[in-house]
Amino acid sequence: MGIEYYHTMVRVLDLEKSLAFYHLLGLQEVRRYDSEAGRFTNVFLAGPGEEARLELTYNWDGDDGLPSDSRHFGHLAYRVDNIYELCQHLMDNGVTIARPPRDGWMAFVRSPDNVSVELLQKGEALAPAEPWASMPNTGHW
Amino acid sequence: MGIEYYHTMVRVLDLEKSLAFYHLLGLQEVRRYDSEAGRFTNVFLAGPGEEARLELTYNWDGDDGLPSDSRHFGHLAYRVDNIYELCQHLMDNGVTIARPPRDGWMAFVRSPDNVSVELLQKGEALAPAEPWASMPNTGHW
Repeated sequence: MGIEYYHTMVRVLDLEKSLAFYHLLGLQEVRRYDSEAGRFTNVFLAGPGEEARLELTYNWDGDDGLPSDSRHFGHLAYRVDNIYELCQHLMDNGVTIARPPRDGWMAFVRSPDNVSVELLQKGEALAPAEPWASMPNTGHW
Repeated sequence: MGIEYYHTMVRVLDLEKSLAFYHLLGLQEVRRYDSEAGRFTNVFLAGPGEEARLELTYNWDGDDGLPSDSRHFGHLAYRVDNIYELCQHLMDNGVTIARPPRDGWMAFVRSPDNVSVELLQKGEALAPAEPWASMPNTGHW
């Protein structure tokens, strides 16, 4: 019985806000499905040249449970070319770096719906550098 | 700024119970990391021959928030070779098929921690067949 990974789906309260966040990360919309009958929209997101591993579900009539902070869900993780550049880009656009990349290797941010997103430097960790090295954590992730 | 998908992490309350569930699905343990200092274990799971797209985090001292049922997290999705065989295998091992594959194409189950897992038939849907075609939903997913 074969099985292979397909995608992770997360629900979003405000599709435009969420797309803005995921676009900041460098993800692109590769497929969209609007269901008039179900009154929802699915948007599939991918990094450049990769399969869509993240599906956003937006319910047109709202979702009382969002934003939420569950425990069984951990995070989405992405490897990135330059963690400092990406974190700076996120900060410049108002995203809080919950766990700054003090070690040049790992950072955590939150989506507008409180989805925890882990960013990992590809290959070797970068040399420690300010402002990251001395930046404290904000909240949890 | 390049970015590529790495994995989805979910927290588990009982590592053995969760591994039993994911093994039933056909996922295999490919990497494990025990942290004495952090008092946690990470287990990475993959389908045959694929990269590990699912990380389980088990906190040795328990996790008060589990099992939980959040809304921002949707599901993990996997494509499978034969959805009827897999659902039968899961049922035979005590797993409730929350959304049976009535259409020969899609099913949903829950992990021991309430993580929603979507199963999708690879390629074309199978021809409708009993006991699936007339099996009602159980709960939500």
